Amino acid sequence: MGSTGEINGSGNLMDFLDEPIPDVGTYEDFHTIDWLREKSRDTDRHRKIASKSKESIWEFIKGLLDAWSGWVVMLLIGLMAGTLAGVIDLAVDWMTDLKEGVCLSAFWYSHEQCCWTSNETTFDDRDKCPQWQKWSELMVGRSEGASAYVLNYFLYVMWALTFAFLAVSLVRVFAPYACGSGIPEIKTILSGFIIRGYLGKWTLLIKTVTLVLAVSSGLSLGKEGPLVHVACCCGNLFSGLFSKYSKNEAKRREVLSAAAAAGVSVAFGAPIGGVLFSLEEVSYYFPLKTLWRSFFAALVAAFTLRSINPFGNSRLVLFYVEYHTPWYMAELFPFILLGVFGGLWGTLFVRGNIAWCHRRKTTLLGKYPVLEVIAVTAITAIVAFPNPYTRRSTSELISELFNDCGALESSQLCDYINDSNMTRPIDDIPDRPAGPGVYAALWQLALALIFKIVITIFTFGMKIPSGLFIPSMAVGAIAGRIVGIGVEQMAYHHHDWIIFKNWCRPGADCVTPGLYAMVGAAACLGGVTRMTVSLVVIMFELTGGLEYIVPLMAAAVTSKWVADAFGKEGIYESHIHLNGYPFLDVKDEFTHRTLATDVMRPRRSEPPLVVLTQDSTTVEDVETLIKDTDYNGFPVVVSKESERLIGFVQRRDLLLAIKSARQKQDGVVSSSVVYFIEDAPQSPASSPQSLKLRRILNLCPFTVTDHTPMETVVDIFRKLGLRQCLVTRSGRLLGIITKKDVLRHMAQMANQDPESILFN
Amino acid sequence: MGSTGEINGSGNLMDFLDEPIPDVGTYEDFHTIDWLREKSRDTDRHRKIASKSKESIWEFIKGLLDAWSGWVVMLLIGLMAGTLAGVIDLAVDWMTDLKEGVCLSAFWYSHEQCCWTSNETTFDDRDKCPQWQKWSELMVGRSEGASAYVLNYFLYVMWALTFAFLAVSLVRVFAPYACGSGIPEIKTILSGFIIRGYLGKWTLLIKTVTLVLAVSSGLSLGKEGPLVHVACCCGNLFSGLFSKYSKNEAKRREVLSAAAAAGVSVAFGAPIGGVLFSLEEVSYYFPLKTLWRSFFAALVAAFTLRSINPFGNSRLVLFYVEYHTPWYMAELFPFILLGVFGGLWGTLFVRGNIAWCHRRKTTLLGKYPVLEVIAVTAITAIVAFPNPYTRRSTSELISELFNDCGALESSQLCDYINDSNMTRPIDDIPDRPAGPGVYAALWQLALALIFKIVITIFTFGMKIPSGLFIPSMAVGAIAGRIVGIGVEQMAYHHHDWIIFKNWCRPGADCVTPGLYAMVGAAACLGGVTRMTVSLVVIMFELTGGLEYIVPLMAAAVTSKWVADAFGKEGIYESHIHLNGYPFLDVKDEFTHRTLATDVMRPRRSEPPLVVLTQDSTTVEDVETLIKDTDYNGFPVVVSKESERLIGFVQRRDLLLAIKSARQKQDGVVSSSVVYFIEDAPQSPASSPQSLKLRRILNLCPFTVTDHTPMETVVDIFRKLGLRQCLVTRSGRLLGIITKKDVLRHMAQMANQDPESILFN
Repeated sequence: MGSTGEINGSGNLMDFLDEPIPDVGTYEDFHTIDWLREKSRDTDRHRKIASKSKESIWEFIKGLLDAWSGWVVMLLIGLMAGTLAGVIDLAVDWMTDLKEGVCLSAFWYSHEQCCWTSNETTFDDRDKCPQWQKWSELMVGRSEGASAYVLNYFLYVMWALTFAFLAVSLVRVFAPYACGSGIPEIKTILSGFIIRGYLGKWTLLIKTVTLVLAVSSGLSLGKEGPLVHVACCCGNLFSGLFSKYSKNEAKRREVLSAAAAAGVSVAFGAPIGGVLFSLEEVSYYFPLKTLWRSFFAALVAAFTLRSINPFGNSRLVLFYVEYHTPWYMAELFPFILLGVFGGLWGTLFVRGNIAWCHRRKTTLLGKYPVLEVIAVTAITAIVAFPNPYTRRSTSELISELFNDCGALESSQLCDYINDSNMTRPIDDIPDRPAGPGVYAALWQLALALIFKIVITIFTFGMKIPSGLFIPSMAVGAIAGRIVGIGVEQMAYHHHDWIIFKNWCRPGADCVTPGLYAMVGAAACLGGVTRMTVSLVVIMFELTGGLEYIVPLMAAAVTSKWVADAFGKEGIYESHIHLNGYPFLDVKDEFTHRTLATDVMRPRRSEPPLVVLTQDSTTVEDVETLIKDTDYNGFPVVVSKESERLIGFVQRRDLLLAIKSARQKQDGVVSSSVVYFIEDAPQSPASSPQSLKLRRILNLCPFTVTDHTPMETVVDIFRKLGLRQCLVTRSGRLLGIITKKDVLRHMAQMANQDPESILFN
Repeated sequence: MGSTGEINGSGNLMDFLDEPIPDVGTYEDFHTIDWLREKSRDTDRHRKIASKSKESIWEFIKGLLDAWSGWVVMLLIGLMAGTLAGVIDLAVDWMTDLKEGVCLSAFWYSHEQCCWTSNETTFDDRDKCPQWQKWSELMVGRSEGASAYVLNYFLYVMWALTFAFLAVSLVRVFAPYACGSGIPEIKTILSGFIIRGYLGKWTLLIKTVTLVLAVSSGLSLGKEGPLVHVACCCGNLFSGLFSKYSKNEAKRREVLSAAAAAGVSVAFGAPIGGVLFSLEEVSYYFPLKTLWRSFFAALVAAFTLRSINPFGNSRLVLFYVEYHTPWYMAELFPFILLGVFGGLWGTLFVRGNIAWCHRRKTTLLGKYPVLEVIAVTAITAIVAFPNPYTRRSTSELISELFNDCGALESSQLCDYINDSNMTRPIDDIPDRPAGPGVYAALWQLALALIFKIVITIFTFGMKIPSGLFIPSMAVGAIAGRIVGIGVEQMAYHHHDWIIFKNWCRPGADCVTPGLYAMVGAAACLGGVTRMTVSLVVIMFELTGGLEYIVPLMAAAVTSKWVADAFGKEGIYESHIHLNGYPFLDVKDEFTHRTLATDVMRPRRSEPPLVVLTQDSTTVEDVETLIKDTDYNGFPVVVSKESERLIGFVQRRDLLLAIKSARQKQDGVVSSSVVYFIEDAPQSPASSPQSLKLRRILNLCPFTVTDHTPMETVVDIFRKLGLRQCLVTRSGRLLGIITKKDVLRHMAQMANQDPESILFN
């Protein structure tokens, strides 16, 4: 051990990893990682490989393989995320339809697939084919009438309850971490926090299965957030194959960032949007190398999903739309109104959901998660069945709302009164007066809107996998479609009004209600998540044209502004705060006039900082210190009088080192002196063997002066990913600031001055 | 002045800005800014506005306006960048055609516009209309024959020389900074360097005018890079309207990043690609807020350009393409080959161009920029005229190479032998045997390729505005089209070969040569600039379909890998190094095992660090120090013996403060003591008035310990944008590391171990 002192003299704090003290340099559960240390470890590893690679061809090839392993991991993640997404889509399709009936020719076919294979199907009655039988047809031989309705209703509710019960039981028993959307936790993990098992194999398996069950049960939840979680589990799984990633928490997080991009990519079929989502919303440390690899993973995932082709239309995107008319400047007004609606919905949802989740955490409610899920499912299914717009799956609903009405469309929403002598091509249908079907649909949509708004608030956060993209988009799409039909009918009946005069002549196709639905969906999603660029890009990829970016952007900007005026936090940040994760948001701006000295511990009235000295502490002193305090680490100073800092030692490393020394090293007893200096003096024969611990000492702890503005300190914590920072004045150690102190201080300041958000 | 001590006691290092010492806190030309200080200043400003806004409605509105000014600036930048790009496009169109002839009906019409307005034009002879007259027709009344050819040739060269001479003269006389692409300098400026006038009004005006001249002269250069420079000039101009941006170098750079995005957005009509280009390639400090605003600016710019509609086709994008056939897996092989070609071209171009530019800098060549431009223009024009593919403008050439051949296409490249009884629709033409025109075109393209490769190396970097996107893309497009035609003919004549058998039956449309041209262009652009995501996204926006992302990505990745194997630096980084700008690339990874102590000054053999003491230096001492050294700042310590650091003072601030004190403050003489401490002792009546300078002292200088790995130091410099960092050991000041020291060290280490790039 004497020789290691020299190596450490050259300052490489990581050399001790080669020594057999087990677990030194790893982290405990629910602790924050040290980004700088992890990166430095990776550089060491890298350096070793590079120098070894000069020795032989074999080592050179190994080095090359190591350099390429990043791409291999990305490929694997893309393949697996795409496959899982495809499987989930197919299973959800089948099970959603199972609630209403079954395919006789092959029970594993969904309604659409069943009728697809049937030869008798014509375009008009795609939905009706002999092979597909409703439960009432199969059981009592009737598809119409009160008894059939009641039977179908009953079975619909029963299937929903079964699925939901299975989902919540599986989550409870096998993988508690599989519940929720997972994005708040992934954000926290990516910011450098350890939650063991959150991305484990069990979570992956259970989340995949229960996601299918939860979505199929008809609850007001989506699969997009959980798909991100599933993709990140894949990322974690595959990063375990390469020690480069499995043994380094910082490198592993690069892989996870890319996996998140792949998750969104398959959720919407939008690879570029996925990468930007990962960059904007999820990731913390996102070097450019990761950007490129994320893009690769997202593309592979998207193409894998497409080759599975779950939607049966060779389209990559979830909601493919194609509009035939441009939009007009005057329409910006309703679009902005939709933006305002989206912002208000976002605020309502975040506040309502957080209040409800808070109640769940603090009252009896939280003790009966299974009961809660069963109750919500029962209410959802009972209320949803009578209304055709809530009975079907939410993504089908959104898809229908987004679509423009063709001339032959049989849906109720497209029940316009056709001009009998219309000779236009199918693509270009002029505005027409609404028929009774449209008015009926409007009522049903309004009821569906209210229902969705209320039930979504209570659904998100239950102990089953639940995403909120789809429900949020549904709320916006319904509102948008209602507004769109309103504007369309107004334009049709009042061509002469000034606002329509300029752009809407009689017989022209002026207003596309489907576009309003899309704008509304973007606004509502933006209000809830506060996404900006990635939202617009995802929507751009859905429509595939720059044409509609201005309406989307106007709505997204308005929605964000309106929602931000009521509170800066989106739903993910709110859940992070609710759960008390130590997450330092890169987006929060800290603009207060406090100094490091105001935040550091100890405060003025408190006893002085607990420190170790470099050459006068005994093993017993250290052990007492560890027992009496719960600090994660201790500064080491020259002497208590001079208070000149020489390094910082982690509690965990100290514990492990002393334990290992007591076991293996003869003569280390309680009265042994602990030396952190380079050249420990030879202990005289009479005194016990000394313990040299310089190799676990971090010789480059981060320091700031007491005059440093907290703004700078926050910036340093954020950008360098620190765990703690020592505060000095003229070279003397004064105190310490930990990440938690920073977070606490930021929360305090934000509460003091809530108005400041208006000016950010 | 006595009272300011207390304010400083609360540590706000920026308070001195309120005091009337002029220019304190600003930067000299060719100096690096202090990002932390700038951000802290902005926070102060922000805080003031927020607290004032509570006082009255008027202040509240002023506060809101201030908060919104960012969006206003973005809107203005978008509008102006879009307008300028439109004007430049129109002017270039007209002047390029002016080299060959003139429109009789209206001389300000370009060839296309001239024939567009002519009624007699049919589809077949779009290019020929009576109003448009070649110079020979106008002057000697003949359009054919040797004399007409010679006359046209002569006038073509003359016009080219005139344009080029005008361009270089304008640049020389009015705005030397208007030359080149500007991207290397903008990268440097955005990383926190001051180059006064580089983004000034004169540069804007002259660059716009000379860009038109340079492109019209037919030189092998493009307008894309310079458009970014022009957009950044607009950004700088408009940021001058708001003190929030004009007085803060960090905030100003946020605006410039967005302006760069707007520049690329209008250059290609690709707003998302523009934002990603700014993020990936140009920007240094890119907070998420900037991402959103950049996107807004890019969109506004793109829509402004579209409403000007310079290409006459209502398309946003520069090269709009639409292919009718998918690609096949087997085609990946030629795509990857094109990637290899792109990488080799990138390497050749970067090395050749840098060698030539180095020669220009160091030999007589640099002294005759006008002559150089004239010579290169003469050679370009003389060689270019006989070949139809080099005579026309490069963007027209690329556009033609990208396009798929329709059945009726009259171009030489589309001279296929049509099957006489072909009944297919126009969109879906089977592969056909090539006619003599195609073979002639192949030869001309091959010659054009060699010419472009050679001349571009010599053109980029001359004293005129010159971008390299278009020439690089042209090289790739030519190579790609040649390969594409080759594969197409091979597939047609050898349907039975194993590689074609599976996907190419006789009579099918298997190969799209235009796609090969696009893939080649992406590969070559990637090889030169080392763009990755933004490149693929720009190409994606050009084609508007995810369909072709895999070929593009395969080529871009291959090209980057091949080029990186020969040297990590793209053309922009190489030019930055050539010019010696202090640019700390975020992409470079530093993986060497050196410590802060190895890099800091003073070295072991050197005299100790020059420091000031907090209470024992006289004005004269300080003045001597400033005269004798050229350091940009001095650490202030408690005393020379204890070497305990209390702060850092900038040379410039010290100079200004002493000057101002000597002028305004009675009794400050050479023997006055300079105090940096909080409570300066009352000077006795006998001794001269003391000078209290705590308010220009930075009380929170950045420190690291001598054991800190350089890797961490590099990370800190990069992420926090430091100018210098002090090195301590156990609280004692040891030395200083400046940004230049870091850059020098990185360059040294990179030279020592060039192989390491293989493993990054």
